[in-house]
Amino acid sequence: MDPRVEEHAEVLVDWSARIEDGDNVVLSVGPDAHELAVAVAEKVGERGANLHTTYASGEVGRAYSLAHDGDFDEDPAHELALYENADVVLSIGGGRNTSEGSDVPPETRTARGKAREQIREARMDTDWVSTVHPTRSLAQQANMSYAEYQDFAYDAILRDWETLADEMANMKDVLDAGSEVRIVKEGTDLTMNIENRVAVNSAASVAYDSHNLPSGEVFTAPEATEGEVFFDVPMTIRGERVQDVHLTFEDGEVVEYSAAQNEEVVGDILDTDAGAKRLGELGIGMNRGIDQFTDSILFDEKMGDTVHLALGRAYGSNFPEGHEDEANDSTVHVDMITDMSEDSRIEVDGEVVQRNGTFRWEDGFEE
Amino acid sequence: MDPRVEEHAEVLVDWSARIEDGDNVVLSVGPDAHELAVAVAEKVGERGANLHTTYASGEVGRAYSLAHDGDFDEDPAHELALYENADVVLSIGGGRNTSEGSDVPPETRTARGKAREQIREARMDTDWVSTVHPTRSLAQQANMSYAEYQDFAYDAILRDWETLADEMANMKDVLDAGSEVRIVKEGTDLTMNIENRVAVNSAASVAYDSHNLPSGEVFTAPEATEGEVFFDVPMTIRGERVQDVHLTFEDGEVVEYSAAQNEEVVGDILDTDAGAKRLGELGIGMNRGIDQFTDSILFDEKMGDTVHLALGRAYGSNFPEGHEDEANDSTVHVDMITDMSEDSRIEVDGEVVQRNGTFRWEDGFEE
Repeated sequence: MDPRVEEHAEVLVDWSARIEDGDNVVLSVGPDAHELAVAVAEKVGERGANLHTTYASGEVGRAYSLAHDGDFDEDPAHELALYENADVVLSIGGGRNTSEGSDVPPETRTARGKAREQIREARMDTDWVSTVHPTRSLAQQANMSYAEYQDFAYDAILRDWETLADEMANMKDVLDAGSEVRIVKEGTDLTMNIENRVAVNSAASVAYDSHNLPSGEVFTAPEATEGEVFFDVPMTIRGERVQDVHLTFEDGEVVEYSAAQNEEVVGDILDTDAGAKRLGELGIGMNRGIDQFTDSILFDEKMGDTVHLALGRAYGSNFPEGHEDEANDSTVHVDMITDMSEDSRIEVDGEVVQRNGTFRWEDGFEE
Repeated sequence: MDPRVEEHAEVLVDWSARIEDGDNVVLSVGPDAHELAVAVAEKVGERGANLHTTYASGEVGRAYSLAHDGDFDEDPAHELALYENADVVLSIGGGRNTSEGSDVPPETRTARGKAREQIREARMDTDWVSTVHPTRSLAQQANMSYAEYQDFAYDAILRDWETLADEMANMKDVLDAGSEVRIVKEGTDLTMNIENRVAVNSAASVAYDSHNLPSGEVFTAPEATEGEVFFDVPMTIRGERVQDVHLTFEDGEVVEYSAAQNEEVVGDILDTDAGAKRLGELGIGMNRGIDQFTDSILFDEKMGDTVHLALGRAYGSNFPEGHEDEANDSTVHVDMITDMSEDSRIEVDGEVVQRNGTFRWEDGFEE
């Protein structure tokens, strides 16, 4: 076994999920993620935790959804009970075809998502962590050879997370103290209110309210968004290639949208529910182990010198205790990314915190 | 997709498990059983049932068990809750190496089994069905080419189950009316009491209290076993090849045992608990679609003109309503098979019901 697979498992179980003796763990395994699943099972066993393994196959999900009449039962009791009694949910993505969901009608997908709200909430109440095993299909999505992609993925995942967490604390401090964020670049001049929000130092660990491996971003939950934003990083949403999305906000809601490719996907998302027209997340990518876009949101949104915004659901972790229910509600959470490495700036309360991809606390930052 | 995969899925969902709208289904998928899982997911969706898919990997289970200190938590709440809220559990076996469990110490396996008694009971309280997807690993175990093995497996699985159920009803009638069964062949002269038991016409459907696909046997729960029995069909138990097992019973319990190969496996089983020394099942194989031994208990024990006996746990379905708790209790249920095609007879209350592989109601039976 590639020693990096073992290291990945160790980071996931110990740093990210902090699994302990007696924890009830659900491990979700993609069809090509078997090797990592074996390594993770070993670590979970070593910790004395209890393992239940689920199979996350796009082909199985597609076959089921397409055959169903679309009137899905709400929160089936067996699956709800599983997650309500789980302490940790580890999801290891890694299928054989990233386009497998492309012919499931959006309304079917939305109906299934809406029918599973309590299950999703129960899952998110656990110490959940999502990661991927580098597969050939993800290499293809990234337009890389398999070996090259493995190097890329492990560079992003096997970081010194403690050091990165210290760096990111600077950004968290700025956001926690600030009231208004402004992002400026070509096609973009967007202001968002972040008063009374708690920025999350997303250091790939539940101990930091961070649930992705890799992570390496600081995120908060904006509101009262005004202005326009241009997402120049191409991505695949719901199996479709979406490029050059442009959104205009008024009073916190999207009032105009366009895209150079598959614009209707954006329209479908916005039509999901009221919350889908508002932002649920502003994230600032700070993982410089990620040095190229690979058409995978898990990696792309963490890349150093990018900003991403999500339409839809906000995370309760961005709100002070007792105010989690003020988070924007939606069945969707769709991230879109803009490159901030050139001709750009991020301002907080009128002060520049990043210019042309360099943070204020870094060498080379020009006042 | 091989049309037989679709047919297999249809038999499993409709004939075997009788899945209906709103049923909460757990589908357990072996690592090489993906294709059948996709076909089953489609049928489950068509019926409007709710699908939760689990991953049954021998490698994952081995890694977990070997790394664990062996002091397993009892019935982890998340998994117990899943099965307690499930209506149907479909298990599709099909791994990549039937020997994967061979280096898990028997005491670890036993400890894990004992720690999961409530989970197993909850699972068995559902309409559960076990089947296998014909894989290359099973073909190897059977010493067959893959294509030959597929033909073999589908001949056994895709039968006219209604017609076979009618045939098997003859055998059930004999056993239900009888008090004592005697089996006689070389090295074998065994008598068992079956009074007040309910024989199960195991026609591969929960509607017949039958939980295997393929099935094709009539089984009951014997007691007060006396005499000796020789199992000449070789099989793999707990990853080890076991041959020519000979057991001697007194007062219903094994008092002597021997085997030509891996005798210690038999000893380990007998030492599990008190119930492991008693019989939990007498089964009479009647599926003539199975015409050779393939070292897989699911198929071998159903073969026409064989008898199998299981050490350990009995099925509640063999007892009159309200008397299910009289069933022999054990954490194990290990089947062993003897070939009845030649120089043999089965008697019930002194009357021969099968001689040299021919039943009383068949052509060629000699009084």
